[in-house]
Parts: sequence; structure tokens; C-alpha cells
Amino acid sequence: MENNFIPDIIIGRLPIYLRSLQQMNTEGRVITSSQELGERLGISPAQIRKDLSQFGGFGKQGTGYIIEYLINQLCKILKVDRVWDIVVIGAGDIGSAVARYQGFMDRGFRVAMIFDSNPEKINTSVGSFTVQSSSTMIAAIHQAGIKVAMIAVPSSQAQEVANQLIEAGIQAILNYAPITLNIPPHVRIQYIDPAIHLQRMTHYLTQGEEHPHRA
Amino acid sequence: MENNFIPDIIIGRLPIYLRSLQQMNTEGRVITSSQELGERLGISPAQIRKDLSQFGGFGKQGTGYIIEYLINQLCKILKVDRVWDIVVIGAGDIGSAVARYQGFMDRGFRVAMIFDSNPEKINTSVGSFTVQSSSTMIAAIHQAGIKVAMIAVPSSQAQEVANQLIEAGIQAILNYAPITLNIPPHVRIQYIDPAIHLQRMTHYLTQGEEHPHRA
Repeated sequence: MENNFIPDIIIGRLPIYLRSLQQMNTEGRVITSSQELGERLGISPAQIRKDLSQFGGFGKQGTGYIIEYLINQLCKILKVDRVWDIVVIGAGDIGSAVARYQGFMDRGFRVAMIFDSNPEKINTSVGSFTVQSSSTMIAAIHQAGIKVAMIAVPSSQAQEVANQLIEAGIQAILNYAPITLNIPPHVRIQYIDPAIHLQRMTHYLTQGEEHPHRA
Repeated sequence: MENNFIPDIIIGRLPIYLRSLQQMNTEGRVITSSQELGERLGISPAQIRKDLSQFGGFGKQGTGYIIEYLINQLCKILKVDRVWDIVVIGAGDIGSAVARYQGFMDRGFRVAMIFDSNPEKINTSVGSFTVQSSSTMIAAIHQAGIKVAMIAVPSSQAQEVANQLIEAGIQAILNYAPITLNIPPHVRIQYIDPAIHLQRMTHYLTQGEEHPHRA
């Protein structure tokens, strides 16, 4: 199954399905349907059935999906049926918040190390971690065999940090710095930039335009 | 121009173009091309030209785009040629980090208020803000005419907070709680959930699979 090519647009929706199914599981639910999932997620039931049928189909028409089985299958496809160590680069507000976040563990991830280049931050505590010096980063990541990193440094430093991470063997980067990075094709990258998300919505705000302050 | 319908998928790419153009502007650049933008962003130049041609086209074949002019036009389309006040709900790690973040102002946004329901957090300081009680939230938002909110509360409280925000007149929500919210059609919502982004990438990690710990 894992050798079959699955279009990236479908892979992109699977974590959304998984999150909702895990929520249902927490609520004690056993069975769901593409209709119910669709209503929760604002995605058409036909789309959900089509996406899930890529993997041989987990449900039968009329009987619905067994939530726990579907969770297990999606975790396997997404390879989060294990726990991936993550390194966090940057011990500022965002890096620290991410390192302390308790919600990764049951979704396949565990923060393992946090690095910063600022001498005032090195050796300080962030949650249960001690901030390590960036100068030791490449060797530490390489030795631990870590493949996943989060960049939470200022934009001006993000590309250099990314280059070092890739040299250290990192294959997946979640970048919080508000800048597009130049990454070789064998490395995956995802971006989190709240201003981008906000700017996607303001175009549609039509009422109350008398309120905002002209820049 | 603002009355013309622009497909949402194009609106979604414009903030990415804008961020890159503002970066170029900071670097002192005056003119760019769809080729250069495309290389920076990993988007095809043809796509960029097509997207920008939706608005009458800002550049001429062979002469490129005047960066400052393009920035101004994109800001108008996205309605970030003004500064929108934002409310932040939840003064935990993420809410506090967002409230202190200095990078919103020159991208069209300003955090105006932060609320929390925890008596231990109310009246404490977060950056230059004093955390206000959630009990006053609806009235305060309504009175200030604020349209944009960020939710940074635990998943279990997020739907109730969203309902209150919508009652208060909020039209755009950036939700950091890892749960899909039920929102009426006239309200826009965007999600930030780092685990979702990470799970989009792990499917592709094939090397080093001996390293991760089996859950």
C-alpha cells in the first residue's frame, strides 16, 4: 500500500480526516459515515469517499466506517503509527511555545531538542528542555538520526538554518519564519505564517469598513 | 475592481506573492519578473502571470513588474492597505506569543485586545496588553467594531468561543485550536495546526525509518 502513489492533494486532506476521527474516538464514538465527516469538515461526502477509496476503501455503502480501524489505517499511510522526534530551532516566543506544546505526542511527534544561537538563551530552560547551542546542532541532529525540524528563527536567519538542517539530514521542515525558503527537491517543507492566513480572509470583509484605520 | 469575483484559490496565492514582493522591496529591489517570483516561490511563472492578469495585469511582457506598484495593488485587493484590529482569545503560550509578535503591523494587522477565562490570567500582562476577562469579550468586541479574531484556547472551549465571537460581530477567525469548528457561511475561518502540517510530510519520509520509535 505504501508503495502506491497517492496524489499530494489527497495526502493533504488525510490529516484533517484523521484529526476529526480521533476527536470522534475521544467522544466514545464507534462508527461514522462520509456524510457525518463531510458535515464536520465542510468537505463533500463524495470527496471523502473518493479519497478513502484510494486505499482500497475502508467502509461499505450503508454500514459506514469503523472509526478505530480507519484511524489505524490513516496513521499507517501518514506514517504516524510511530513517534517522530522533532528538533526546534529558535527559543523565542514561538519556538518555546511549540517546544512546550503537549498536543504532539498522541499525533505522532515528540520534541526532542531545542537550539538557539543567542548566548543569553543557551543553557536556559524551555519546559523540560535545556536550550542547546546552534553550533552543536548539525552534529546532534545527525547523531540522533532526526528527520523532522521546525524553524522558529527570524526571517533573516531562516535560510541559513535550513541549509544547516538539510546538511544534518533533516527531510521535513515546518517553517514559522515568514519567508519562502529555497529547499532541494528531496526535502519537504510546510509553512505557518499567521499573517498569510489573515490576508486570505480580509479580502472578503465587506462590512464595517469604516472601522479599520487607514495605514 | 473589488466588485469582480476572484476565485478563492487565486486569493489564496496573493498573500504569498505579496510577502515575497515585500521581501524584495526590503532588499532595495525595484523591478521583478514572473520568472524570478516563480523561482523564489516554487510556482510556475505562467501561473503567476495568469493570477496577476485577473486584475488587469500589472506588468508588460519583457519589462517585468514594478515591485512597489504591484505591492500597492495586491494590498488593495487583499484589503491590507489599512490596519485591521485583531482580538486574541486565550493567553496561554500560543496566544501570548501571537499577541507579542511584532510582525503583524506592516502586514495589515494589529493586536488590539487579549482575553482569557482563567481568573489567574485576567489582569496579568502579555507584552503591552492587560489580559481581559472573557466575560466582557462580546461587549468589548462589538463596541470596538473589531472583525478579526484569533482563537488560542483548548479544543474543548474553541466552539463556544467561536459562537461568542460571531455573536460579537467577528467575520474572520484564525483558529489555533486543533479542532474543526462549525461556522456560519458569512464567517471566514482559517486553521493553524502544526501537527496537520507535520503529518502532511511524514508520509514522504522513507529513509531513516529505523530511527523513529514505534508507538
